[in-house]
Amino acid sequence: ANATPNKTAHPFERSRLESLLFGRFFYAPAFDIYGGVKGLYDFGPPGSSLQSNIIAEWRKHFIVQEHMLELDTAIITPAPVFETSGHVARFADWMVKDVETGEVLRADHLVKNVLQDRLDRDRLARDPAFQPKKEDDKKKKKAEKDKPKAEPVKLPDEVVAEYENILAKLDNYGGPELGELCQKHKITNPDTDNKVTEPKMFNLMFKTSIGPAGDVSGYLRPETAQGHFLNFNRLLAFNNGTVPFASAQIGRSFRNEISPRAGLLRVREFTMAEIEHFVDPEDKSHATFHEVRDVELDLLDRHVQESGSTKVARLSVGAAVDQGIIANETLGYFLARIYLFLTKIGINPKRLRFRQHMANEMAHYATDCWDAEIENSYGWTECVGCADRAAYDLTVHSEKTGHPLTVKQQLAEPIVTEREVAVPNKRLFGKTLGRSTPVVTGLLDAMDDAQLLKLKGELAQGAATIVSNDGQEFKLTPDLLTIERRTFRQTTREFTPNVIEPSFGLGRILYCLLEHSFWSREQDMDRGVLSLPALVAPTKVLIVPLSTKKELSPLVAEITAKLRKAGVFSRVDDSSQSIGKRYARNDMLGTPFGITVDFASVQNRTVTLRERDTTVQLIGPVDDVIATVTELVDDTIDWTEACKRLSIYDGVQAVE
Amino acid sequence: ANATPNKTAHPFERSRLESLLFGRFFYAPAFDIYGGVKGLYDFGPPGSSLQSNIIAEWRKHFIVQEHMLELDTAIITPAPVFETSGHVARFADWMVKDVETGEVLRADHLVKNVLQDRLDRDRLARDPAFQPKKEDDKKKKKAEKDKPKAEPVKLPDEVVAEYENILAKLDNYGGPELGELCQKHKITNPDTDNKVTEPKMFNLMFKTSIGPAGDVSGYLRPETAQGHFLNFNRLLAFNNGTVPFASAQIGRSFRNEISPRAGLLRVREFTMAEIEHFVDPEDKSHATFHEVRDVELDLLDRHVQESGSTKVARLSVGAAVDQGIIANETLGYFLARIYLFLTKIGINPKRLRFRQHMANEMAHYATDCWDAEIENSYGWTECVGCADRAAYDLTVHSEKTGHPLTVKQQLAEPIVTEREVAVPNKRLFGKTLGRSTPVVTGLLDAMDDAQLLKLKGELAQGAATIVSNDGQEFKLTPDLLTIERRTFRQTTREFTPNVIEPSFGLGRILYCLLEHSFWSREQDMDRGVLSLPALVAPTKVLIVPLSTKKELSPLVAEITAKLRKAGVFSRVDDSSQSIGKRYARNDMLGTPFGITVDFASVQNRTVTLRERDTTVQLIGPVDDVIATVTELVDDTIDWTEACKRLSIYDGVQAVE
Repeated sequence: ANATPNKTAHPFERSRLESLLFGRFFYAPAFDIYGGVKGLYDFGPPGSSLQSNIIAEWRKHFIVQEHMLELDTAIITPAPVFETSGHVARFADWMVKDVETGEVLRADHLVKNVLQDRLDRDRLARDPAFQPKKEDDKKKKKAEKDKPKAEPVKLPDEVVAEYENILAKLDNYGGPELGELCQKHKITNPDTDNKVTEPKMFNLMFKTSIGPAGDVSGYLRPETAQGHFLNFNRLLAFNNGTVPFASAQIGRSFRNEISPRAGLLRVREFTMAEIEHFVDPEDKSHATFHEVRDVELDLLDRHVQESGSTKVARLSVGAAVDQGIIANETLGYFLARIYLFLTKIGINPKRLRFRQHMANEMAHYATDCWDAEIENSYGWTECVGCADRAAYDLTVHSEKTGHPLTVKQQLAEPIVTEREVAVPNKRLFGKTLGRSTPVVTGLLDAMDDAQLLKLKGELAQGAATIVSNDGQEFKLTPDLLTIERRTFRQTTREFTPNVIEPSFGLGRILYCLLEHSFWSREQDMDRGVLSLPALVAPTKVLIVPLSTKKELSPLVAEITAKLRKAGVFSRVDDSSQSIGKRYARNDMLGTPFGITVDFASVQNRTVTLRERDTTVQLIGPVDDVIATVTELVDDTIDWTEACKRLSIYDGVQAVE
Repeated sequence: ANATPNKTAHPFERSRLESLLFGRFFYAPAFDIYGGVKGLYDFGPPGSSLQSNIIAEWRKHFIVQEHMLELDTAIITPAPVFETSGHVARFADWMVKDVETGEVLRADHLVKNVLQDRLDRDRLARDPAFQPKKEDDKKKKKAEKDKPKAEPVKLPDEVVAEYENILAKLDNYGGPELGELCQKHKITNPDTDNKVTEPKMFNLMFKTSIGPAGDVSGYLRPETAQGHFLNFNRLLAFNNGTVPFASAQIGRSFRNEISPRAGLLRVREFTMAEIEHFVDPEDKSHATFHEVRDVELDLLDRHVQESGSTKVARLSVGAAVDQGIIANETLGYFLARIYLFLTKIGINPKRLRFRQHMANEMAHYATDCWDAEIENSYGWTECVGCADRAAYDLTVHSEKTGHPLTVKQQLAEPIVTEREVAVPNKRLFGKTLGRSTPVVTGLLDAMDDAQLLKLKGELAQGAATIVSNDGQEFKLTPDLLTIERRTFRQTTREFTPNVIEPSFGLGRILYCLLEHSFWSREQDMDRGVLSLPALVAPTKVLIVPLSTKKELSPLVAEITAKLRKAGVFSRVDDSSQSIGKRYARNDMLGTPFGITVDFASVQNRTVTLRERDTTVQLIGPVDDVIATVTELVDDTIDWTEACKRLSIYDGVQAVE
């Protein structure tokens, strides 16, 4: 029972994982019989199931537990919405073209790949045993075919330092800087050695046209967020007119990536889950922050990065907020909740960090942003962004459309202020000033306390003259008006809420989870295992009848029915393959538990329970095994506890 | 407890329902602060929840219960896929333009609206009390503003008959016929009285371009089906190489409708659920057909429609298959399963019929098709299509790409055949014929039994001459070859499966369900109720503390926790509104049960349970009420049974 498996006996190989994932149809490149389209993937049965289990847990963890208001809004969006939001102008990447072949490359990726390659060659020159990090498989293959092996080339120490500095700050550069870097460091297309053009903006939204006349242009949304903002007034009404509240949406979004790569990590179509938490800009505290105050995170703040370092600091969320590293409680609250969600579904906490955006890197709408980055074989990948969008979106949409998107708050304590006002003598004022009345009224209304007090003094002396903007003079006398001190009570306050936005790329999370879960049996590298937590595993329990003979069917049916009643999703594998092969296949599918039914089971009403990672088997009465596996799946007990409740199976079950 | 509510006291009014749905944010027109885009809607909290409950039940009813293979495939699809599938050429509607204003209208809708209007005026002339069916509210409003009220205009009897005949067959007309109808019956744009152009095809797919170079064109899928077909080989492998099996997918699809109308019934973006059931073309029986054999359906077959009638026949699925009205068991099986699903989630079975497509109406890929149509205030609307696509899709994709999309089946009994073959004398054949060898071999291989026997006869006589296609003659002698009878054993069979496709428009089903569930309290027309079944209701139980005082909080928290543990989704309404208002609001949201907690509850540990439709309240100990409401929600008991378990609440609960 304590046969702890050695999960690191074989080093991680991405090609091995991918062959499992494509082979078992977790997912696969879409349209491959048509030659495929980069950045588009189809999810097969186990992948769909894993994805919907992750979504179900997300819904429970965020929407249900925090009473968020769920939305499902349109994907096709008329152009004016994204013109207002700034996406038409600024939701773009910098691209360069190979001057000879016309091949399009993302400018920041080009700089990164070329400089990294030079640094690797330098390392190799200094230390012949050095192994450069694996690149994208496909790229590597191409490089191997087309080019001689990387030659060691030693660089001067100061150049190494300069390159490292550039790489640490890479996300901070705009197009012109990237162009300068290409020139200064003679960066060319590595596949052709040709020069590249100056960086140009390429908008990442897919465009289409709506309706038969073809004159209404629209975009596929690149995020779900605008659908929340445009419905702000409906959501506010649903929440009885008060903030804070959060809306949430799970749905498809689209980005026309310049050169999609790295499998599910950079795709053109993806499922995301977004929360827009609307909050009073003057009070970004969070009611249940105390519940997460002690959660510890690996933080990489902007100052550390701007100094050229990537060293994380481990800190409790409470301390980080207290020290001003995280700007406010609400932002901190969500970072902690994101951490709890990711680790719950199986992300390795040691490969999870929170990185703050640097100033130039931030999306145009954000005032602060932290990414949950997960380490995987491609490096550290942004999987969740958590941005403070301030009042940006609600303000621009409101200004553009003329519809106020604000909160009117009844003040608990009215705000009482005193100030001077000019009180006209109704009988004489208009009569005396005639057509000049509105101009004079306007001038008086525009005066502040000091000006009114000055006027009061002049009137007390007999008369005053006020001058309009265009130089007209008006004489005022004490019979026309008096200046009085009055008290004002303000009972409501109107404000545009700020928005804190946690935004999850579910495909990226799913892929990192698969990498973190994958290992091979020590005794056989070809026997891959996906150690997915039961919470998200596509199937929770595999029921394996030892034989296809009919005698076993009633017990198999009984176990299936009882598991279904207990809410545990099981599958029967009654194929004719050996029991070992059937289990091996389900280890690859990540199925955490197996129940074997044999002829002794029918006689004794006992079955065995197998745990995926250790392959240890326990034995017990049918109903005890069902009760135990239900608790294991619900995570109310662990395997150690299960071993106490049932007996170790020694491989022999007597048939009397 | 038996206070059966009178749900038909007030006639159905769509505007009243819509004001509830928009007001409570079930859904609302998308982008309305930007002036809106026709045919795009956003779902708010109760609508999203209703939709995901319908999807959850669909997944259980179809995918889980029938072990279907779930998919989630790409929406953006490269153009060649839809060129092959026929969508680029034929997935189109016929549109006409107003010759003066250029307004675009769908040709079939124009014919239908104008003729229906004429028939209504005729009815009015014959019977002044006649009330024409309500049209789309918006259209009605416009008509009321711009036009005089419909005048009664009597038509000759034979014209009435002709119009009725046209309307019954409307879906059977193509563009040219619709053009002729417009000419013959002087059909003009009703808004302007202008003539319209000849009908032209308008493709209903949204187009976009993929990648930075802009040279890869693609479409947003108008259905999820192609994603299943292109993955056929992966799915087949997942199912161990055998048919029948079904794949299933729930996802967004897009159709660029010419003039979207009728709310959620005709939209440009929608969530659909599709099943592709792959089956041996020579055996369309279904293993569990016996389970649904006795399900009775209202059927409207193609012959009845082609005779100009819309009279349904009520028949068991078994009888309909036996009589050949439904083509095969698999099609019949799915029609019955569709019926069971729709009625389970709350569709009124009396307003549900199955209509067979007429020959010209069928989609280009279908060989037979039945629609589940649901009656609502707009008429009978197709909500589920159930088509036999035969081998169309797999065949065209396979031919286009060169990838076989077939099943290789091991035959239980090998097929043994005998036939004549030409056996060359290895030593002499090539040597004698020299460079002609391949030509002669080809000619011999192409011969059938009769030709070979004739050749055998000639050889027996000494020599034979065979002639190639281009007239070359070859002399054959008995020493070169013999003709022998041989036995062949075929152990596998290769075939392209047929596809039965049930395809669900979830938004349409959701809207019809809302219409079927809506009524107003007899005593107050403004108190709308949505009698949604607990299975799909957004919230199952509303917990209502009678006061906001702290004493009630622990009990409210206890009930919430116990309901959550029992898997029942509840919400607490602790707003300061009166209890009556809080219940009225939740009747509009379709919440089936309410638990009221007051001060007596704390003392006695008893709470009341309220049923939405009757407003009857029962009382009992906390745990009994929780157990009862859990069973009510799980549909294992009904309200009559609940009334036996708990006591009728008389409105007074003693506080000692």
